[in-house]
Amino acid sequence: MADDIEAKLYHENLPNIGRIAKNRTKQCCQPSTLKKFLPILDWLPKYNFSFLIADLVAGLTVGLTAIPQAIAYGSVAGLPTQYGLYSAFMGCFVYIVLGTCKDITVGPTAIMALMVQTHVTGSADYAVLLCFLSGCVILILGFLNLGVLVRFISVPVTTAFTTAAAITIGSGQINNLFGIKSPSNEFLESWENFFTHIKEARLNDSLLGVITLVVLLLLRKVKDLPCGYKVLTKYISLSRNALAVIIGIVLCYCLKDGDKLPFRASGEITKGIPDFKLPPFSTPGENGTTLGFGDMVSNLGASLASIPLISILESIAIAKAFSKGKIVDASQEMIALGCCNILSSFFSSMPITGSFTRTSINHSSGVQTTMGGAATGVLVLMALAFLTTTFSYIPKATLAAIIISAMIFMVEYERIYEIWKSKKIDIIPLAVTACVCLFWSLEYGMVCGIAVNAIFILYKSARPKIQIHLEKINSTPVAIVEVQENLCYSSAEYLKSKLIKFVAIQGDGIVKLVVIKGEEITNIDSTVAMNIISLKEDLSMLNCGLICWNWNYEAAGVVCRLHKKERSMFKFGKSLEDVVTDMEESTTLQLDTVNED
Amino acid sequence: MADDIEAKLYHENLPNIGRIAKNRTKQCCQPSTLKKFLPILDWLPKYNFSFLIADLVAGLTVGLTAIPQAIAYGSVAGLPTQYGLYSAFMGCFVYIVLGTCKDITVGPTAIMALMVQTHVTGSADYAVLLCFLSGCVILILGFLNLGVLVRFISVPVTTAFTTAAAITIGSGQINNLFGIKSPSNEFLESWENFFTHIKEARLNDSLLGVITLVVLLLLRKVKDLPCGYKVLTKYISLSRNALAVIIGIVLCYCLKDGDKLPFRASGEITKGIPDFKLPPFSTPGENGTTLGFGDMVSNLGASLASIPLISILESIAIAKAFSKGKIVDASQEMIALGCCNILSSFFSSMPITGSFTRTSINHSSGVQTTMGGAATGVLVLMALAFLTTTFSYIPKATLAAIIISAMIFMVEYERIYEIWKSKKIDIIPLAVTACVCLFWSLEYGMVCGIAVNAIFILYKSARPKIQIHLEKINSTPVAIVEVQENLCYSSAEYLKSKLIKFVAIQGDGIVKLVVIKGEEITNIDSTVAMNIISLKEDLSMLNCGLICWNWNYEAAGVVCRLHKKERSMFKFGKSLEDVVTDMEESTTLQLDTVNED
Repeated sequence: MADDIEAKLYHENLPNIGRIAKNRTKQCCQPSTLKKFLPILDWLPKYNFSFLIADLVAGLTVGLTAIPQAIAYGSVAGLPTQYGLYSAFMGCFVYIVLGTCKDITVGPTAIMALMVQTHVTGSADYAVLLCFLSGCVILILGFLNLGVLVRFISVPVTTAFTTAAAITIGSGQINNLFGIKSPSNEFLESWENFFTHIKEARLNDSLLGVITLVVLLLLRKVKDLPCGYKVLTKYISLSRNALAVIIGIVLCYCLKDGDKLPFRASGEITKGIPDFKLPPFSTPGENGTTLGFGDMVSNLGASLASIPLISILESIAIAKAFSKGKIVDASQEMIALGCCNILSSFFSSMPITGSFTRTSINHSSGVQTTMGGAATGVLVLMALAFLTTTFSYIPKATLAAIIISAMIFMVEYERIYEIWKSKKIDIIPLAVTACVCLFWSLEYGMVCGIAVNAIFILYKSARPKIQIHLEKINSTPVAIVEVQENLCYSSAEYLKSKLIKFVAIQGDGIVKLVVIKGEEITNIDSTVAMNIISLKEDLSMLNCGLICWNWNYEAAGVVCRLHKKERSMFKFGKSLEDVVTDMEESTTLQLDTVNED
Repeated sequence: MADDIEAKLYHENLPNIGRIAKNRTKQCCQPSTLKKFLPILDWLPKYNFSFLIADLVAGLTVGLTAIPQAIAYGSVAGLPTQYGLYSAFMGCFVYIVLGTCKDITVGPTAIMALMVQTHVTGSADYAVLLCFLSGCVILILGFLNLGVLVRFISVPVTTAFTTAAAITIGSGQINNLFGIKSPSNEFLESWENFFTHIKEARLNDSLLGVITLVVLLLLRKVKDLPCGYKVLTKYISLSRNALAVIIGIVLCYCLKDGDKLPFRASGEITKGIPDFKLPPFSTPGENGTTLGFGDMVSNLGASLASIPLISILESIAIAKAFSKGKIVDASQEMIALGCCNILSSFFSSMPITGSFTRTSINHSSGVQTTMGGAATGVLVLMALAFLTTTFSYIPKATLAAIIISAMIFMVEYERIYEIWKSKKIDIIPLAVTACVCLFWSLEYGMVCGIAVNAIFILYKSARPKIQIHLEKINSTPVAIVEVQENLCYSSAEYLKSKLIKFVAIQGDGIVKLVVIKGEEITNIDSTVAMNIISLKEDLSMLNCGLICWNWNYEAAGVVCRLHKKERSMFKFGKSLEDVVTDMEESTTLQLDTVNED
């Protein structure tokens, strides 16, 4: 028994890396693993006709939103209009095979578009490369099971990020809504441009823009009307963006006067389905030079981390929202998302991720499997093949109205109020993220928010809850220390100084013994161990002993392995009374106590 | 009683900033505060003649080491020799008034010199400005009581940092030891230069250097010899650096042949005590331009954070090592150190901090109060006034031997072995810090080490210990969840997914109720609260209830304030059996259970 304890104390349990690797390899070669990596194998055999009908209806409904949104987000990204559509089909196809959540629709989103926009200068090369590289990063993170990283983005930070992104994107369209030309899509610059150029607002565009915006906001609510045509109102509500685009195009075409269009329009769109080709690993630079892959990567910089992270965050959050109690396989979702991005980049796509709007349309249209994506994808391809000439008539004001009407509901007023109600201090990371996102850049906003929030964790780690009280055991005054959290290097000094202060304040020689109860201490590091030893030395200067009582063997072992002689400090299994009695017998402690009593 | 609970739940306890500010102001105006800020008021009234003698002897002994070390560290910093001495006196004087630890000697140190070296280009302006600004930063951190920041530098990181610094500094002197010219003091470059230019080694310098090094290492041990002349051998050992310098100078002077010196020597030293003047807030740049304060600050960059931090770290660590059970007033130590740097910078000093070598000499020479510093300071001033011509004869090989003999004992082999023995994983931050320090830069090494170690804390925060077991209460299967650590946003998802997995694995409808015991949960944030609510919703999809039992009011309040209706989830004071009975009565749960039994 005693030998058993010694063995546990002097032997550190280390993970057996060889065995873990072996197990992993073994796991990979099992047939169930194939099903895990290709979820289609699970549902395809059970597929039937009624599923097909449901998926077709849902997929087409989603397509009617996907097309106008894709065109709009292409313009948010500052890319030629067709690039939005290029981004909107491949993700749907890939997700059929690899996706685990039937409702999710992968494609361009407002936030992705905004984050890509900073890198788009003249050509789409950076956007496409970013799509490819983000895909690779997401895939690697998925294989390494590192999706847990997004757990360090707290709700206040995501709330602030989404809200700031929505405000920035919406503000970026305010000029287009009134037919004003704007050199920038940034938050402050857009409003500045709006107010300084408000006299240049064009009546036609303003009327179309504002009316479209109001109608879109009303149509959003039309499905809740208490009337007989439930199905009709529902589909009008779901396809309201497509309706707005069609009406815009018709108005623009009918009211045109020779070559002069009545509204500012999207202009020429390159016709046809994009070629399948490698993503651009070099791009023309200034003055006829060529920038190589290295230069492009260094220009992309932090985006190579932030875009994959936000992509994962959006996608996993949607998967969780629609999983309804089922467990989301985050790794598989990341692998699917990574593949969507990589394959999509071969068709000149910008970075894509799960879209909340289209996923919820998919869900409410009654999709049964991920096969619904096929209908969406085919619809987008058909639009690219046959409708590009028509799309060149889309008024910019209509697109602006579509974007703004979506962004208004991305501003999470209620969530911010909830956070304020439930925990005031959480407003700090929220405010930091929001301010940096709005006034500097989305990426740095996210980074600052995560950093500020991590400081909360680090601060807490440095201040574990430690309770000390004085107790008479066998008439010896003993300070009992209860550590209610784990100790780590940042709290080592805190424990030591708190204890020394306690003993010193009681007065010279009053406290004869300090007992640190260790039930809660499951693990410590070498810094804590060294501080415990120096604490013992410092206490002995104050004529006070130190006992570590009933510590977990793993934690006690760290100290014992450091200096073998410190083993005597640890007592296991005995009652506190026995420990104090042993102590009194072995030292002259007893005499002192009697004298003072 | 019930109203009392509701009041606690719906009212968040916030710190009363007004009252705190008032208390602080009140504290500042008490007479004891003056004594706290000026520790000299405490000991000066009790000062007597025997103290004076002890302080004088100790101060002079320290001075004999301080002078050669100051000259040597001046050369490590790449500054003209006199700057080492300029840095070595003002700190001693200021610390008399403000210091709390009688043994500490403030002055130039090897690590500070090495960190300053990167910024010294031609003139000493940057070094002096760095001294002033570091002083300001330390002073502010001291007043704000932010010395706790150094708690995030763990023992493995400091060990690696010190060891890497010692290796870098020692390696930088290897060329000087053999009389070889070297363009760089960096670790790799020095050794490369040594091996490529080894044929240019000068016999005189090599002989002097190696013999001095061996003798210094032997003299270090001479005080332990079992002989009759204890006091004599002790003083020879303590003043061995001064002896080496004197012998070097004598040899150099006696063996000189006309103007030709036998060794490579330090060369001309500006004579006299430095003028009292403002630190340089501008400096000549390239091509006759002038760099202003802003440019200088941006050139100093991260050093403005790292030098103060390391300065504090060194000084507080020494104070703790020599306090022997007394509580170190870290804030006051920082205030003292900040003032030392600021005032020293007016005498053209480089950044200074507590020196471990000289502090231990001070201690073992029996110093009684900080007054010992006066003797040291005066000795340095006298050297500057009268001995500069003599010092120009100091052979570089002698200085190299002094530096290398000191650095050998700064390499903490034993500590590294201890860390390896006690906790293997702590070698990771150690290795990261050491590698980055050696092969990139000391500052980034420190930053990377702190970051890697902080990841340990963050990782742990994301994986709290959660134990779940199934128990039959009133014959209802209940999953009891014991959370043994605090929950924060990073662990919110973990708790949720772990619980859902547990319930799902048991099979559909088996677990009727999940009870989260909350004794250990002292506080949660809004992210955790939202996850608890969505956990409840997800569990209800699995036909399972959720009860939070006996939570701390503060933690429960965060959830209740978020959504008022979630109040019903929390049960206080009742036994688990009663809770389950209530549950059964209020729902149809009971029927289901009976059916299944």
